[in-house]
Amino acid sequence: MKLRFNIWEEIMPFFIPKYDSLRIHDLMLSDSIRTQTYRRAIEANVKKGDTVIDVGTGTGILALFAAKAGARKVYAIEPTGIIDLAKRIAERNGFSDRIEFIKARAEEVDIPEQVDCIVSEWLGVFGVQENMLPSVASVRDRFLKSEGKILPETVDLFLSLVEDRELYYEKIGRWKKQPYGLDYTDFAFCQANDVHVTTFNSDNLLSDPVRIINIDMKYSINSNFKVEKHFKVVREGICHGLAGWFQAIFPGGIILDTAPDQPLTEWRQSFFPIAEPVQVNRGEEIIVKFSTKADNEIVHFIREIVFPNSDRPSFVSDTRKVKFSD
Amino acid sequence: MKLRFNIWEEIMPFFIPKYDSLRIHDLMLSDSIRTQTYRRAIEANVKKGDTVIDVGTGTGILALFAAKAGARKVYAIEPTGIIDLAKRIAERNGFSDRIEFIKARAEEVDIPEQVDCIVSEWLGVFGVQENMLPSVASVRDRFLKSEGKILPETVDLFLSLVEDRELYYEKIGRWKKQPYGLDYTDFAFCQANDVHVTTFNSDNLLSDPVRIINIDMKYSINSNFKVEKHFKVVREGICHGLAGWFQAIFPGGIILDTAPDQPLTEWRQSFFPIAEPVQVNRGEEIIVKFSTKADNEIVHFIREIVFPNSDRPSFVSDTRKVKFSD
Repeated sequence: MKLRFNIWEEIMPFFIPKYDSLRIHDLMLSDSIRTQTYRRAIEANVKKGDTVIDVGTGTGILALFAAKAGARKVYAIEPTGIIDLAKRIAERNGFSDRIEFIKARAEEVDIPEQVDCIVSEWLGVFGVQENMLPSVASVRDRFLKSEGKILPETVDLFLSLVEDRELYYEKIGRWKKQPYGLDYTDFAFCQANDVHVTTFNSDNLLSDPVRIINIDMKYSINSNFKVEKHFKVVREGICHGLAGWFQAIFPGGIILDTAPDQPLTEWRQSFFPIAEPVQVNRGEEIIVKFSTKADNEIVHFIREIVFPNSDRPSFVSDTRKVKFSD
Repeated sequence: MKLRFNIWEEIMPFFIPKYDSLRIHDLMLSDSIRTQTYRRAIEANVKKGDTVIDVGTGTGILALFAAKAGARKVYAIEPTGIIDLAKRIAERNGFSDRIEFIKARAEEVDIPEQVDCIVSEWLGVFGVQENMLPSVASVRDRFLKSEGKILPETVDLFLSLVEDRELYYEKIGRWKKQPYGLDYTDFAFCQANDVHVTTFNSDNLLSDPVRIINIDMKYSINSNFKVEKHFKVVREGICHGLAGWFQAIFPGGIILDTAPDQPLTEWRQSFFPIAEPVQVNRGEEIIVKFSTKADNEIVHFIREIVFPNSDRPSFVSDTRKVKFSD
């Protein structure tokens, strides 16, 4: 087996508790599409004199953008130690008086006033995986003025049937082929149940993308949902699973789009494999039952792919099957 | 700023507590140089009828190699939940009767006999960063026969002065240049104190490599050391810091070498930057004071680079300055 060089997809799903490390912040800050889109959205929506909450401020960059845009007061919430660095950066930029850093979990925070705007970069793998949405909702329900803005305002999740022989081999196929002379099919089983961060291009898609859910940040309370969607196959090919991505939309129509045909972001796309590749034909209709289940700091993805016009079995995969808790 | 695509270097230093995730095991198993070198070393050293301990067995692959090589009994120690998957894999390979899995920290384990061989893949960034060496030593001191073997037997750490303008810009330089219109020099300061996983080639080296320490796994007890070494500059250039790597040597002379001129492994090389680049000249002698300090699950790297023949200041960097604890 050859060591791959872009190993992003190996690791991303397990970043979650490590926001006290410098590396994850370097990565997020270095994604200029992510950071510049938030910057434009903040400049377009935060008015002079506004009060703002930044949920999960990290090194404080969104809070700094809000202060630069004229915010009178920014409450920057962050539970991890990186907040100490954020304070130093705010001081050096001359915003210590306008940004108040609060080291706490968002759910536990108390803000002495209602605010005009909430900003948060709460997005993870397939948008919701980090399960930060309830934290943002908790702050919104307690501290956002009724006419206040929330950035982003909606997050749409998309799926498409996908063909990618090489990716499938790398993630699953090779583990079935006696690597190092050993039977590693149990590892392949886990890999097939997992979600993998990878990159696709439009050529990989076997169906038109389907928006499976529209998350409205004005009202949404958690990351759990359950849908059943029909996918029309647009070309003959081998289905290796589902490609997933999200679109975050800010008030005023500014969009952060992580689709396969868009410039690459740190999120890439998500790959939900099936255990065995299946031949599909143009015009065929495939049913996908997709649900999420929040489990503390992670959202699990459960999916079933049904091939109604054939005797091929449906495939159920579930990230809960790859959780090895200590 | 452009998002880099090989972001391995961003993340590797913060893997440590996540051995219950599938991704890190996929990564380690996929490194065929790592895995095949261990396989050859085990085949060359484990004899029929031997008893073996595998410290930190993960998905169990080294234990399986030992069993295949003829071990009568293998004690496979692993504190994280991945051991459940290892058990399934061992069963499917028909080794359930010969491999005993023990879910525990190595220091707490009790083995009912002295063993012929200890195998362990305890290696992290710059060899020692994960601070797993004391765990292996603890097992060795209690359960290894006096004539028993330990794989690997020695680990040598190497440093060289290094020139890499692009890497320096990416890690430090660009954070000094008002990214997104903000002063992020505090972030640059942290980056300069950190250790970064990256790849070098021989052309990057400004000096001959110096072996700074030889860790003898027969006797070594922890990851702490302190050295002062002289580096002769072999070509004129800009010194951006130090490149670091390790060589693990197994009984019989089998070598796992992660040097810049060797085939790439998951470890890549380590980059210890300095805060400001310094011009150096051929024949010049540079002094490096390098020490490590183990702090629970991580080993910190403290280094000072002294330029004796000039009025340039010496540079002290210390990974403890980038620890943001929660």
